[in-house]
Amino acid sequence: MGYVIGVDLGGTKIAAALVARDGTIAAQARRSTHVEEGVDAVIERIVDCIHELEAQASHPIVGLGIGAAGMTDSKRGVIVMASNLKWQDVPLRDLLAARLGRSWTQPIQVDKDTNAAVLGEMLYGAGRGAKHLLYVTVGTGVGGGMVLGGRLYHGATEGASDIGHLVLEPEGPVCGCGKRGCVETLASGPAIARQAQKALSDGRSSTLSTLDIETITAVEVVRAAREGDPLARDILSTAGQYLGIALAYYVDINNPECIIIGGGVSAAGDLLLEPVRQMIAVRALPNNAQAVRVILAGLGASSGEIGAAALVWHQLQH
Amino acid sequence: MGYVIGVDLGGTKIAAALVARDGTIAAQARRSTHVEEGVDAVIERIVDCIHELEAQASHPIVGLGIGAAGMTDSKRGVIVMASNLKWQDVPLRDLLAARLGRSWTQPIQVDKDTNAAVLGEMLYGAGRGAKHLLYVTVGTGVGGGMVLGGRLYHGATEGASDIGHLVLEPEGPVCGCGKRGCVETLASGPAIARQAQKALSDGRSSTLSTLDIETITAVEVVRAAREGDPLARDILSTAGQYLGIALAYYVDINNPECIIIGGGVSAAGDLLLEPVRQMIAVRALPNNAQAVRVILAGLGASSGEIGAAALVWHQLQH
Repeated sequence: MGYVIGVDLGGTKIAAALVARDGTIAAQARRSTHVEEGVDAVIERIVDCIHELEAQASHPIVGLGIGAAGMTDSKRGVIVMASNLKWQDVPLRDLLAARLGRSWTQPIQVDKDTNAAVLGEMLYGAGRGAKHLLYVTVGTGVGGGMVLGGRLYHGATEGASDIGHLVLEPEGPVCGCGKRGCVETLASGPAIARQAQKALSDGRSSTLSTLDIETITAVEVVRAAREGDPLARDILSTAGQYLGIALAYYVDINNPECIIIGGGVSAAGDLLLEPVRQMIAVRALPNNAQAVRVILAGLGASSGEIGAAALVWHQLQH
Repeated sequence: MGYVIGVDLGGTKIAAALVARDGTIAAQARRSTHVEEGVDAVIERIVDCIHELEAQASHPIVGLGIGAAGMTDSKRGVIVMASNLKWQDVPLRDLLAARLGRSWTQPIQVDKDTNAAVLGEMLYGAGRGAKHLLYVTVGTGVGGGMVLGGRLYHGATEGASDIGHLVLEPEGPVCGCGKRGCVETLASGPAIARQAQKALSDGRSSTLSTLDIETITAVEVVRAAREGDPLARDILSTAGQYLGIALAYYVDINNPECIIIGGGVSAAGDLLLEPVRQMIAVRALPNNAQAVRVILAGLGASSGEIGAAALVWHQLQH
């Protein structure tokens, strides 16, 4: 018996939890991140959460897992680049170990949040029993994490599973990465919002037209689509088709059993997933298309903390 | 000390060799396949080769590896579908084991030829030292085999690394698989020959125009390109760009160290590889593009037998 502390480190909040081996949460702790106060202050708040949880633990703490949005070097425990934290090359694992002191001897794992998420879904969520999985988050950005043969796969330089920047429309919208027509410019939350704004400016009729066009978000498009609005459904369907083109490539390259869709836009459910499934059926080889299920993420509001803890629970099993 | 017998099973010939642990060949044996005589006759010829090589072996035989073009079930040792052999669901491993009798107790590995090739290149060829590799053959078809984290990766249902059927031009030429615009319809040997035939029919000037247009092959296009013919170079460059689009997707999905290009069309060398490299640089994320080298296969005429033997040597190491 024991707990892993899982920490979901985001640009606005730090969410931490005591997570048992079966994925259940025994206690939670939260802080605002306050990025503007600098790295040391953020680390102090993570340590506050850890101490708060340690005080409530009825069993030993066997490790600490941290998931962060951005590029990470999981071998060295470094946040290489996290735009929401405005961090670059921050040796988070070593800084935390130094701050926690000699009494902390348990493993500390740092990885990108989508790698945490795929492990969380495999161990405790929608991917239970699968050994070949892709997790895709569709939200502010589009990112991925993958498990191959039961193990998290990072690639040669921890750049694997970068689903969001596959170029699908070389003449398409400019992406934050500098290229044009990446998946992220066609299927992310902001892309969906932009398409809704454009359609409304062009005079398409929709229940969305009662809202202030310039501030429409994907949340509102998803809500309208669920309530039956044809324009909102068209926009989600197009986003799903683009996502499906990218995932069909993934399916023929890695032949997964299971693709799990999470992130804010996944609240659209089958309005997003059905076009993904149809595109995979059309574009991928029949054997590979038939082998894969495209499903919604199974972990709820605390998926970040559970996934972060799964980084350690997964490692302890191997 | 010992040898593995490596067998390259093709539609026209069976090539077998005694391969030492360091990849060197001690003896070779060959037969015509004569597919039309049926499965049993082909197996008899494989067994002939095995006996011929056993008689010449100065050290014990420690295993038998067989690489075949087509879909295989490596766990069960079955050729699921091989169009050049006209075989479907042939339990090759068990048939061979039965025919070799009780005195044969060594492991027998059956896998697709591109999986054999990637192991051969990793252990003995251009990929030595790498742990994350893709081998791509560009010949009559376009196929792949991949190593991730030092291990051969098959996927959930042995459908991984199917690079040749990624759809790049949904309105493009019809492929043997039933889809349109697969990599194979844009960058394979027959695709290159077809493009040359079309350009010559359209009246483009080229040293190729001295040949009979209808029977031009990729071999001739590659030769003309190496001799400086601008049309032939354009055609290879276009093929390389399409291959590069597909490989850029691979690079962002699996973040390999090394992509090894083999097969007949790879005789074009940098005339094919340079456009591949350029497209990866433009399309993949900078960190992933910088991590990968695109190089020619390093094993020569006996790469099939060496790769087939590598299936067993690789397994004996794990």
